[in-house]
Amino acid sequence: MSTYRVGVSYYPEWWPEEEWEQDFSKMEALGINLVRMGEFAWSWFEPSEGQYQFEPMRRVLDLAARHGISVILGTVSAICPPWLYKKFPEVKGGDLHGDYTFGGRKGNCLSSPELREYVRRITEEQARALGGHPAVIGWQLDNEPGYPFAEYDKRCVKKFRRWLRDRYGTIDELNREWFTMFWSNRYTSFDEIDFPTHSAEGAWHPALFLATRRFFSDNFNSLLSMEAEILRRHVGPDVFLYTNWPGANWSVNCFDGTKYLDYAAWDNYVTLPTGEDYRLQLRSSMEHDFDRRLSCGKQRFLVAEQTVAPNAQTLPEAIAAQSWLDVAQGAFGTIFFEWRPPLGGAEQSYFSLLAGDLTYGEGAPAVRRFAADVQKVWPMLESSRTEADIATLYSYESSWSTRGWTVDGPYDQDFFNLHGALRNALRRDLDVVGIQDDLTPYRMIAAPGFRICTEEQAAKLDAWVRGGGILILSRDCGMFDPECLMYTRRVPGLFREMCGVAAVSSISSDQMASLSGGFTGVEFPDGRRFASWKMLYKLRLEADDVEVLATYTCGKLAGTPAVTLHPWGKGWAVYLAADCDDYRYYEALARELGRRFGFAPLFEAEDGVLAARRVTDEGDVLFAVNMTETPKRVTLPRRMTDLVSGEPAGPEVTLPGFGTLVAR
Amino acid sequence: MSTYRVGVSYYPEWWPEEEWEQDFSKMEALGINLVRMGEFAWSWFEPSEGQYQFEPMRRVLDLAARHGISVILGTVSAICPPWLYKKFPEVKGGDLHGDYTFGGRKGNCLSSPELREYVRRITEEQARALGGHPAVIGWQLDNEPGYPFAEYDKRCVKKFRRWLRDRYGTIDELNREWFTMFWSNRYTSFDEIDFPTHSAEGAWHPALFLATRRFFSDNFNSLLSMEAEILRRHVGPDVFLYTNWPGANWSVNCFDGTKYLDYAAWDNYVTLPTGEDYRLQLRSSMEHDFDRRLSCGKQRFLVAEQTVAPNAQTLPEAIAAQSWLDVAQGAFGTIFFEWRPPLGGAEQSYFSLLAGDLTYGEGAPAVRRFAADVQKVWPMLESSRTEADIATLYSYESSWSTRGWTVDGPYDQDFFNLHGALRNALRRDLDVVGIQDDLTPYRMIAAPGFRICTEEQAAKLDAWVRGGGILILSRDCGMFDPECLMYTRRVPGLFREMCGVAAVSSISSDQMASLSGGFTGVEFPDGRRFASWKMLYKLRLEADDVEVLATYTCGKLAGTPAVTLHPWGKGWAVYLAADCDDYRYYEALARELGRRFGFAPLFEAEDGVLAARRVTDEGDVLFAVNMTETPKRVTLPRRMTDLVSGEPAGPEVTLPGFGTLVAR
Amino acid sequence: MSTYRVGVSYYPEWWPEEEWEQDFSKMEALGINLVRMGEFAWSWFEPSEGQYQFEPMRRVLDLAARHGISVILGTVSAICPPWLYKKFPEVKGGDLHGDYTFGGRKGNCLSSPELREYVRRITEEQARALGGHPAVIGWQLDNEPGYPFAEYDKRCVKKFRRWLRDRYGTIDELNREWFTMFWSNRYTSFDEIDFPTHSAEGAWHPALFLATRRFFSDNFNSLLSMEAEILRRHVGPDVFLYTNWPGANWSVNCFDGTKYLDYAAWDNYVTLPTGEDYRLQLRSSMEHDFDRRLSCGKQRFLVAEQTVAPNAQTLPEAIAAQSWLDVAQGAFGTIFFEWRPPLGGAEQSYFSLLAGDLTYGEGAPAVRRFAADVQKVWPMLESSRTEADIATLYSYESSWSTRGWTVDGPYDQDFFNLHGALRNALRRDLDVVGIQDDLTPYRMIAAPGFRICTEEQAAKLDAWVRGGGILILSRDCGMFDPECLMYTRRVPGLFREMCGVAAVSSISSDQMASLSGGFTGVEFPDGRRFASWKMLYKLRLEADDVEVLATYTCGKLAGTPAVTLHPWGKGWAVYLAADCDDYRYYEALARELGRRFGFAPLFEAEDGVLAARRVTDEGDVLFAVNMTETPKRVTLPRRMTDLVSGEPAGPEVTLPGFGTLVAR
Repeated sequence: MSTYRVGVSYYPEWWPEEEWEQDFSKMEALGINLVRMGEFAWSWFEPSEGQYQFEPMRRVLDLAARHGISVILGTVSAICPPWLYKKFPEVKGGDLHGDYTFGGRKGNCLSSPELREYVRRITEEQARALGGHPAVIGWQLDNEPGYPFAEYDKRCVKKFRRWLRDRYGTIDELNREWFTMFWSNRYTSFDEIDFPTHSAEGAWHPALFLATRRFFSDNFNSLLSMEAEILRRHVGPDVFLYTNWPGANWSVNCFDGTKYLDYAAWDNYVTLPTGEDYRLQLRSSMEHDFDRRLSCGKQRFLVAEQTVAPNAQTLPEAIAAQSWLDVAQGAFGTIFFEWRPPLGGAEQSYFSLLAGDLTYGEGAPAVRRFAADVQKVWPMLESSRTEADIATLYSYESSWSTRGWTVDGPYDQDFFNLHGALRNALRRDLDVVGIQDDLTPYRMIAAPGFRICTEEQAAKLDAWVRGGGILILSRDCGMFDPECLMYTRRVPGLFREMCGVAAVSSISSDQMASLSGGFTGVEFPDGRRFASWKMLYKLRLEADDVEVLATYTCGKLAGTPAVTLHPWGKGWAVYLAADCDDYRYYEALARELGRRFGFAPLFEAEDGVLAARRVTDEGDVLFAVNMTETPKRVTLPRRMTDLVSGEPAGPEVTLPGFGTLVAR
Repeated sequence: MSTYRVGVSYYPEWWPEEEWEQDFSKMEALGINLVRMGEFAWSWFEPSEGQYQFEPMRRVLDLAARHGISVILGTVSAICPPWLYKKFPEVKGGDLHGDYTFGGRKGNCLSSPELREYVRRITEEQARALGGHPAVIGWQLDNEPGYPFAEYDKRCVKKFRRWLRDRYGTIDELNREWFTMFWSNRYTSFDEIDFPTHSAEGAWHPALFLATRRFFSDNFNSLLSMEAEILRRHVGPDVFLYTNWPGANWSVNCFDGTKYLDYAAWDNYVTLPTGEDYRLQLRSSMEHDFDRRLSCGKQRFLVAEQTVAPNAQTLPEAIAAQSWLDVAQGAFGTIFFEWRPPLGGAEQSYFSLLAGDLTYGEGAPAVRRFAADVQKVWPMLESSRTEADIATLYSYESSWSTRGWTVDGPYDQDFFNLHGALRNALRRDLDVVGIQDDLTPYRMIAAPGFRICTEEQAAKLDAWVRGGGILILSRDCGMFDPECLMYTRRVPGLFREMCGVAAVSSISSDQMASLSGGFTGVEFPDGRRFASWKMLYKLRLEADDVEVLATYTCGKLAGTPAVTLHPWGKGWAVYLAADCDDYRYYEALARELGRRFGFAPLFEAEDGVLAARRVTDEGDVLFAVNMTETPKRVTLPRRMTDLVSGEPAGPEVTLPGFGTLVAR
Repeated sequence: MSTYRVGVSYYPEWWPEEEWEQDFSKMEALGINLVRMGEFAWSWFEPSEGQYQFEPMRRVLDLAARHGISVILGTVSAICPPWLYKKFPEVKGGDLHGDYTFGGRKGNCLSSPELREYVRRITEEQARALGGHPAVIGWQLDNEPGYPFAEYDKRCVKKFRRWLRDRYGTIDELNREWFTMFWSNRYTSFDEIDFPTHSAEGAWHPALFLATRRFFSDNFNSLLSMEAEILRRHVGPDVFLYTNWPGANWSVNCFDGTKYLDYAAWDNYVTLPTGEDYRLQLRSSMEHDFDRRLSCGKQRFLVAEQTVAPNAQTLPEAIAAQSWLDVAQGAFGTIFFEWRPPLGGAEQSYFSLLAGDLTYGEGAPAVRRFAADVQKVWPMLESSRTEADIATLYSYESSWSTRGWTVDGPYDQDFFNLHGALRNALRRDLDVVGIQDDLTPYRMIAAPGFRICTEEQAAKLDAWVRGGGILILSRDCGMFDPECLMYTRRVPGLFREMCGVAAVSSISSDQMASLSGGFTGVEFPDGRRFASWKMLYKLRLEADDVEVLATYTCGKLAGTPAVTLHPWGKGWAVYLAADCDDYRYYEALARELGRRFGFAPLFEAEDGVLAARRVTDEGDVLFAVNMTETPKRVTLPRRMTDLVSGEPAGPEVTLPGFGTLVAR
């Protein structure tokens, strides 16, 4: 890979063959060197059962090659042709309202043997027919695996029961681990267990809910690994496999995905930065860091879909800023979605690089410039890596077990906010890790809402802190065992001694607001105040050396500890008893910790400039990306070289709106 | 018809026979000369299967005749007796949540052969038994056809597939016209097509949605035309047939209804005007104009149900104003709903002319006075007509294909607002037309949101504009073919050259509001500002002679064109790139166009006075209806005669609150 | 019963046997003398079908006895073991969305013969095995009967039809009483009647709705009475039976429950008073008064579950205030919920007396003090009674027939507000009665929204008023017969003559607010204003001696009568034409009536102090409970004795925040 991959999604099956040439020519003219195709083309490849047709796609691949454009192909399991549904309606799953009818995409029943068999066949045929084509450099498995977030059909119930038997062995063991004597939900056989769908009160055992989510994740991973296994038999060793996670933190455990994938990728659909608002770019940034972790030690990942059209209030240059951030955090390619708007279907008139009349749209010039500039710096970045001594710790179980049960629920909001705040306030690189990872490279780890936690895991963190680590914890961390049973503990559970605090009571933020009248939140010693979000715990300090970093502002809690710091061995434990849906709250904390513990920034800059570094054997490459539309000042650590222009830069630099500096 | 029909809805089957006489006496005393009966009386006519009983209704008809009251009878297909549902549960349709259970009314399955057969039988029996009675002057088919707006049961799926085969011929043709290769939704047989009900993502092909709506409309029209065919065989040539549309712009294509009906009618349930607020009366006014178009060239229509009871904040006189507007726009009768409140059932204690204790309610005096006055002017109006040189163009397909898929969605709101604004600001009569109509009588036509448009239709409008017409367009007009596939075009699609503009980007109003902070809307050169509603298109002017009539106020769009005017041949094209849910916005535009193009008002008046004219061979009759509770000044074109009092009137007249002047 | 019962809910089946001893020891240390157990323990008692196991519970009973703690046991019909559901899925009922799946609790199908049979068996076994144990002093039937509020499964439909046949005899009679000719819903057999579930318009006959609610209530009472009958055969005469109503005013007619129960009990889950806000305590107070009525003439009742943990904004002392109010109004015991938090299940980490780490929680000291103090006064209260000359009249039918169809709908809100206001403003005791009760003890009765009312019932009230009673009526009182058919009457229906007023029109409060702009509500002569809530009736005064107590403030109603007073015989009728969701409105009325008719308070006090009296043969015991966190002044009628401290008290007393004075 001697170039940065600047790609587009393209659907040749939508268009008459005579229009393909023109599309590829226009791509080439824009600097596009990668095209992703085929992930929804099952009906094209297999118009009726067993009648395979890959010649047209082969002609597309030839055409791409002629234009110097590499290809990523997709397996087709995110859709299902009508003839298959007609023959076996059970290939579609179902939700709380019953089995799905046919229409649109997704919702295939992952537990249907028929679905598996037909996916196996078409994948096999696809791999055999197209896998050896020289234009093909990679394969995408499925599309945005995870959605819809649950399957409650009868095929899945059966498979779920088998899964439960495998996990728990005996029904007595399951009863014990789930605390089923509560409300007499004690099972006498695995066959008595149903999904949590339509009970009279809707009051389910948390353990059942968590098991449902685990099963769902395993079921998705098993489909994808089957596809990977098929492809491996047909494609060359240089062809890579990935899937485009809709975000790593959804309903499928992506740590498990590393067993069968080569790279991670995600679909960066966050809205372009607008004016001075770049909050969502901090979210992108977290996903980038997460995907680096998920890319099997390769220190690089793919952005598989990225917004390509500015709305009428955003400048087109924001597209370039968004793309440079991909590069800065380790991407080896960015695929813009999409090349050309479909005339019909659910995404009719979707934002595309071509406008409705097939002339270039508003985003095209920015893409062209990015495509040209990125290739100038790519040779210096190709074998680069990110090095970080700070990490956030993500726990799928903690997310899945948090009230709300949806993607981007409170657990994930906290995680986003805290991760983004650490990166933004400290202007340093961050990693995302799992509790199973080696923690020794890190000086500071944030594990917000780390509620599902074994005693072994708590001990691992304890040892790491005692050895000098700084651990940031929040909410009901350390309160639940792996089956979501509560420990016989007060909040913060297994971390009570480490944090030196214990909760004596609590109140929801809403209730506090309605009862106390005043500002409901947290105040730092310098007077900055932040509104609390979900829950406030009233703390009792249990050690003399607990330091209070912030206090509550409201009602009877006013002045009592909300954020605490406690030395533990050679390290420190930070506990946040109240969360907040504003990342500035976490920035205030991050700055305080940065100051105390000496985390120096990569460079100084005005607010709105994101910082990142790629380490190479020839030295560090720094990235300063202005995520706002107004110019911002940056102070580099020394006079450096602007790798795009080749000119000297800094130390004082003014970045134009949405401008990026790549310097060494 | 030598009298204006002042009617009431009455349900003799609810009451003991001995109470009928008293009811009719009280009607007569109030000036009522028409009664509508029987549309929900299936269980009365056929208490058990095949046991018909029409004698009681015949006695009612005799009684009505003795009181000088004419009768409209209803067919009974809007309900279904429990015994029929018990025998064939499939006579009820279903929605997204499954098949309906029995209860209330409506929801009959229009695709059930059993339902059709039993409706046929009872209609045949009704027509035979009652159709020849001299008191009966007309028949109403069904009741408010269209609701509920979709039927998703299995009988309808089968019929839908036959309907699709009839429409498209082959499945390949359907695939082509629907763009089904998107997401592999490519069908191999018509049997694979289901209604858009419960898919995993709920992401349907627009073409499938539109077909569903077309089928639904056709299905309703086919039921009604069957009823019409039966009735025609039994009733005399002077007896007229109509149905009471709940509004012409609902889910049934009323243009098709003209094939089997004599008149149009609609149920005027808009709230009575209150204080100075008469917005909803502009909506009534649009429906009146629409119904004139739907009355098969007869220039008259019926108001089949009209609110009869003022709430505690409205004056009873508002009832008279509402009724006079019916007359002014071409009604030949107004049926008040309803005579007497039912003691039970879903409409228990509904507003009625009689109060709960069977004394006259608060609305009665106003009805009595209206009934007396209208007869004084009716001889001069009976053969009158409305003549207009402005029209609005309604497109069912454009409405049905607009996101929201509900009655009164964004398309219809725009249509209401623009129609009402033109009438109110110009104080002239308007017509409503379809694109299939002769457009040559009109100098100005407004076709807001005319998005589903063939190239032939665009060419027809183009020729009409080139010939001197003024065409008002908006939103995504001209963007979609008849199957809701997008043209390879930028907004405003097929009208781009005519309008001289093209969209380069867009943003939803909500998003703009949240991003730009300031007032999100449109400003006219005189400084008047109106908040935008759904979508803002950023325009590029593509001809030198485009004139900007109004500009955006917000964010990066501030100062750019929002409303444009472009000469085209001998005519003009107006394009509104932003809509607004305030009819005052369209009034501002209407006044500007009126001034430029010389549309003189019928007479001058203060705001709140609605103007209309009926043309007769003996001269024009002008109507000035004060829709507010405060007196308003009117300046007639000359001294005229008040046709109610017989006294001279004007040219300066002061109308009392809710007062009406009918002058010649 | 020589002690006040201070109890807790405890679930020994959740815990290892070795932990029981510690739990009971900690209870005893806190002053707990009652424990409620077993109501969800079916799976413990019968782990698989027919395999009964009561030895463990017997060991718990022995242990309780050893700690001097009495026991209440529960029947287990609020849950169902998975093995029973697996064998007979029909033991679960269903709702609008279909039959329930297994999970959590509740939702058993009350019409399932299998459910009844298995409940009968386990209850018989339980009663036989445990009923004779000396520690057991009472049994609770089921748990919070009533929820979920409807069952729409097929077993229930069948039983409903039988119930209808029993009630109406013939289908003709049902048709007549239900007014089914409306919309041709006229049935020809009982088999045609379904529950009001999924019709096209959702427009049901009110009579059908009301019948559904009546059937549901009867069905629940029949289950409970079966359980009572079984228990009576096995337990001694001193063992009492009750059920823990979730509130008397829910979906089961509790008047019927007095036929098979010994006492009433309710679950007092109202939020603890906070700061100066004690509104919800007035609701508790109403339920207490209601439960006294439901306790079969015993003048005492049980609080079966009461919140035990203060949130972070409430003081723990509020628990004591809440408990003293129980005592003041006639409770013989308070069972706190719950002893110890479950580790899993739907109520994971629920508020408990023990904190998560099994140390005493924040509420424990307040419970300990209350437990100690209440025993000091209990000997003087044990045979006491409440005497009241004011009552509120509750009508299940009126509640069930009011739009909304939910628990705590508008009827109940009005009832709560009016009851609470009378008690609070007059500082006197109140009773709750049904229309079937003897009304002669009362000088004043409030029957808000008493809409379902026979002519005999109206006559009974008429005679009582003529004899000197003061009757408070509101809304659409007297308008509907027992089948919810409207009388041929204007509002206020059968009470028109008594009240001397009639409604001429109406308007919803929302509509009035949007039309009139100003303050929409009611004003008293002293200038106090209260916002109206649901509906405003415009009144016509029909007698010269009607006095207007308050007038409307808004729109065309401004200045017209909203609250009237009319002498009738020796008594008076008060009519409220507008309701209000603020009890202060009703307090304003109560004070006016108190002044006019001489209802003297038990003692004077500042706002926030609740007053009650228990009458004994040795004299009256007065209760002053400060429901706020700030000190309040009380003026006793004379110098008295503080029964807790034994010291003299008053006449001037200052109660500390949440403090209680019990004085004689």
